[in-house]
Amino acid sequence: MKTINLFDEGSFNDIAFKTLLVHDSENFKILNFNFKAGQKLPVHSHEIDGEVSIAVIEGTGEFLAADNQSIPAKPGDVLICEIRAPHGIRATTDMRVLVTIAPPI
Amino acid sequence: MKTINLFDEGSFNDIAFKTLLVHDSENFKILNFNFKAGQKLPVHSHEIDGEVSIAVIEGTGEFLAADNQSIPAKPGDVLICEIRAPHGIRATTDMRVLVTIAPPI
Repeated sequence: MKTINLFDEGSFNDIAFKTLLVHDSENFKILNFNFKAGQKLPVHSHEIDGEVSIAVIEGTGEFLAADNQSIPAKPGDVLICEIRAPHGIRATTDMRVLVTIAPPI
Repeated sequence: MKTINLFDEGSFNDIAFKTLLVHDSENFKILNFNFKAGQKLPVHSHEIDGEVSIAVIEGTGEFLAADNQSIPAKPGDVLICEIRAPHGIRATTDMRVLVTIAPPI
């Protein structure tokens, strides 16, 4: 059993979004991504089985998808998608998200 | 790809904590538990392989463990533990948490 606080441990970076590895095991990989306003994780996908969940902890922005689709993202929003489906994030304000990948990649 | 907002969809109940099934698949099960102040999920465990993560979205309380152990829980805290390790939650204020179980049970 372990705990980590995303606000205490997760930091921001002016150059690009900052990644904190929260947990990695045979069951799932948990990451915290912190975006300064305007930063983004470009739309991407992986040709493997599995799903990803992205929970917005703080801040607002957009979930990005194929064909330039965009879904507004705010605190409490949880996105779930196949890892093979194109997905990304763009931050409007400073933004913290919690990403869970299962099975882990 | 789907999204859900925990604040919009997750409700509270005066009798016992309220559970919202966010997602259930072969990869993981994602639940939202909402506790009114004072409500708790008693310490329990399951005799199976796998892990659970519990992220505090709103409110404060305690993560509970074996032997009456208690760990303070506040927004941004993420607890990770084996499903077979005793774990529970007690809310001090109204509290929303996001629970991910992998593999799903």
